[in-house]
Amino acid sequence: MKDLMMERSIQLFAQKGFKETSIQDIVNELNVTKGTFYYYFKSKQELLMDIHLQYIERLIENQETILADKTTSYPEKLHSIIFKLVHDIEKEGLRAKVFFREMRHLSEEHLEQIIPKRDRFKENVQEIIEKGIEAGQFRSDLPSDIVTLGILGMTNWSYFWFQPDGEKSDREVAAIFYKMLVKGIQSQ
Amino acid sequence: MKDLMMERSIQLFAQKGFKETSIQDIVNELNVTKGTFYYYFKSKQELLMDIHLQYIERLIENQETILADKTTSYPEKLHSIIFKLVHDIEKEGLRAKVFFREMRHLSEEHLEQIIPKRDRFKENVQEIIEKGIEAGQFRSDLPSDIVTLGILGMTNWSYFWFQPDGEKSDREVAAIFYKMLVKGIQSQ
Repeated sequence: MKDLMMERSIQLFAQKGFKETSIQDIVNELNVTKGTFYYYFKSKQELLMDIHLQYIERLIENQETILADKTTSYPEKLHSIIFKLVHDIEKEGLRAKVFFREMRHLSEEHLEQIIPKRDRFKENVQEIIEKGIEAGQFRSDLPSDIVTLGILGMTNWSYFWFQPDGEKSDREVAAIFYKMLVKGIQSQ
Repeated sequence: MKDLMMERSIQLFAQKGFKETSIQDIVNELNVTKGTFYYYFKSKQELLMDIHLQYIERLIENQETILADKTTSYPEKLHSIIFKLVHDIEKEGLRAKVFFREMRHLSEEHLEQIIPKRDRFKENVQEIIEKGIEAGQFRSDLPSDIVTLGILGMTNWSYFWFQPDGEKSDREVAAIFYKMLVKGIQSQ
């Protein structure tokens, strides 16, 4: 029930906005009582935080699987991570929408639980860059922190324009971003 | 007075949010009457739209000066445009903040005036990529539209993390992004 409640709430928040969706709307959607809601969540804010945590925890889990894979190079790991981010915006569009748009409704106390995860997510990308530099697979004259922010900007921004039914698939967009980042756009 | 009113409103919108700022707050700030406000703007929405239009028109003007410059290569033009975008987030931080955060408060009718400008802004970047490909300065195997969106993502995202008093200046961040994009991050 908890997962189902989160799923339906994502749909409502994406459609109507977080502020405009009441707990009553959520329980109506599921044909349950408010008591059921409060059994799982202390408040609407806590539900929003849980949606965020689930989203980001899944991303981190996936990143760490990629990082731990001993058979791939650092450029290959970077490609997998870029693909996962663009892919998630396609496959989990509503979740991503709610994540980016409604984050500002979280209280200080809830943000304190989210921020370390967001940092971890960023640090995992930075680790790929740094280990890739050490392994001689990435150039060593660019600071890994700004490179990481550039990569995340490129992928995160796709949330604003990526159309799952558009001309290019998530796999094609990820491949283009990867080539831009790794080989550069200058003619060879 | 119109420019001053826009300046002060940007400060108020950035501090308190667009919804939370009343026309009364704006005229109080300037010691003028509501009549003065309505002499320049039909509504708070129109003021917000004018702020957006001014922001984006200045960016477009700057882009077109860069594009028209016959003495620079296309990679050089790209560098100038990346620098201008990161620099603006430093120098016109509040304006950028209001632009990105409050855009969703604009009505359909107001958005219709903004969207063609946003498209023009994007098309100018794409033109640099396309002409650079024709001139043999950029590689020809990557689609210019996705490359453009990747570049804009990288630079626009810096709005979320760039600290004017941080370790790296706008010029340094722009130089790193430029190198990543043009030469790529792979070891040479």
